[in-house]
Amino acid sequence: MTQAPSGEDSLIARYFKPLATDPGAFGLVDDAAAIPAGADDLVVNTDAIVEGVHYLPDDPPDTIARKALRVNLSDLAAKGATPAGFLLTLALRQKDEIWLAAFARGLGEDAAAFGCPLLGGDTVSTPGPVMISVTAWGRLPKSRMVHRFGARPGDRVVVTGAIGDATLGLRILTGKIDTTALAHDPAARDMLIGRYRVPQPRSTLATALRDYATASMDVSDGFAGDLTKLCAASHVSADIQLSQVPISSAASKLVAAGAVQLKTLISGGDDYEILCTVPAAQCDAYRAAANSAGIAVADIGAIVEGPQAPRFLDAQGRPVSLQRLSYSHF
Amino acid sequence: MTQAPSGEDSLIARYFKPLATDPGAFGLVDDAAAIPAGADDLVVNTDAIVEGVHYLPDDPPDTIARKALRVNLSDLAAKGATPAGFLLTLALRQKDEIWLAAFARGLGEDAAAFGCPLLGGDTVSTPGPVMISVTAWGRLPKSRMVHRFGARPGDRVVVTGAIGDATLGLRILTGKIDTTALAHDPAARDMLIGRYRVPQPRSTLATALRDYATASMDVSDGFAGDLTKLCAASHVSADIQLSQVPISSAASKLVAAGAVQLKTLISGGDDYEILCTVPAAQCDAYRAAANSAGIAVADIGAIVEGPQAPRFLDAQGRPVSLQRLSYSHF
Repeated sequence: MTQAPSGEDSLIARYFKPLATDPGAFGLVDDAAAIPAGADDLVVNTDAIVEGVHYLPDDPPDTIARKALRVNLSDLAAKGATPAGFLLTLALRQKDEIWLAAFARGLGEDAAAFGCPLLGGDTVSTPGPVMISVTAWGRLPKSRMVHRFGARPGDRVVVTGAIGDATLGLRILTGKIDTTALAHDPAARDMLIGRYRVPQPRSTLATALRDYATASMDVSDGFAGDLTKLCAASHVSADIQLSQVPISSAASKLVAAGAVQLKTLISGGDDYEILCTVPAAQCDAYRAAANSAGIAVADIGAIVEGPQAPRFLDAQGRPVSLQRLSYSHF
Repeated sequence: MTQAPSGEDSLIARYFKPLATDPGAFGLVDDAAAIPAGADDLVVNTDAIVEGVHYLPDDPPDTIARKALRVNLSDLAAKGATPAGFLLTLALRQKDEIWLAAFARGLGEDAAAFGCPLLGGDTVSTPGPVMISVTAWGRLPKSRMVHRFGARPGDRVVVTGAIGDATLGLRILTGKIDTTALAHDPAARDMLIGRYRVPQPRSTLATALRDYATASMDVSDGFAGDLTKLCAASHVSADIQLSQVPISSAASKLVAAGAVQLKTLISGGDDYEILCTVPAAQCDAYRAAANSAGIAVADIGAIVEGPQAPRFLDAQGRPVSLQRLSYSHF
């Protein structure tokens, strides 16, 4: 009898041990990881993605890995934290070496790019869809986490990047949108698909959020619904100028062609942009700090008093009614 | 339009918010949890359980919740850490209020009993089996984590509690064992089932392990296989006296009746006992410390030099061959 590793252990040794270079990971041969003590607070977050729910079964495995990690990095950024490490739980139907090799490659590249090393995990079999759960943590100065609560009447509502690209990418992949308007612009089509498959966590924004934001969260389930959550947590409301919500030129073309409505974009999910509130007097300084971090931001409205849900106003100042605010699992 | 929460948010608010009393949980209305800085190291661990793989679909929901948390607490104990908090990821097919209420009750009772508060999590829908992933962390003095590596020739191999009860409990639940020998002892039958459904993490043993163990791990996939992993990580081997491996009286009756073989018990899974190695001169002191913590331990063999797999010796000193060392998912 030899000390041949089990299928599970050989899977871990082959695909994930090369990623676990942090000393606290102990080469993935131990039962747990160690995080050194320090003067900083830790911020911990967990988000799972499920095949057929959060990604499509035929999405490239390296993009699935990147998405699983990045949706967590997006939360850390919104809280003002710098990524420090993560644990991976992988529930697989079978040991598919080609899929695993590509998955591990994408994961390793992102772990290196974002300075967020793999420290441990668990691999289990499931008869159901693949599920990937990541728990990530980051560091920030003591008691400086930026919360969902904290928005005050008069604060400006500011959002990064562009809203709605990812839901368009999903609709393109599932054939649920007429893309005639992009027929001569394959790069735009690919950009939208990329925005669905591989979110761009705004990790470089963490410091600016700590310095200027009164409240912050990432936009993952749909901008309208997530803003509603931020307002509810802060016991305030908001008036949003729909014309100011940042939309990519690819999305604008589809809206102009009537292929999709603007209100679909603001209630679609998977944006992974950062929505925050900033005192009006500091809005320019926040914008400058964000731009220095390589991130465009748009001032799209104001926090107002009251228990009502946020209003989304058209160019004439009339509230637009939304049938659906965001994605909910149940 | 009101600020009515989504189904997902109302599920979290109803069932899990009452458990999230730690200040770092922010009442589960934020995107992440905060862990205060400190002089201690943190030990983090993640383990998932899947319906039909790690538990049976008709297991009581409160026991499923307890198992999901306890398998993680068992790892923390083995590493010498005191539980400090956990995150829960729940992948559900539907929102079953009765199941969720019982699940949350069991989870809350265990979180309180083990001093390990819920600090956050994620709830997602899945078309497949229910999956529960827990990431738990604990604290210990700086650089005092007890590893799988560290066992040295001459050390004694010591294990807590009893081995094999849980695999018998599973066999009883699935009708895969003749239980005639326990026909007049329903309490023994229930005990074995309970050992499968609700592990007993040896949390009170953490300090003794830090003080005396050269290597330690919890026994979750099968004693024989887990010992093999500890030996491989430590670059040593072991000689185990099978007659010294602690077996419950219920298990002994089933072995005596020929319903199960001893070697099945030592390769079955779900024991959640703690296997450690202790310098021979300190074995009595370790036993006394464990007993003071309310835990029985058994000295079952010795660490020896060499690359060979551990040997399991019968009463005549002859090695017993095992077809299967432990459970592997792939």
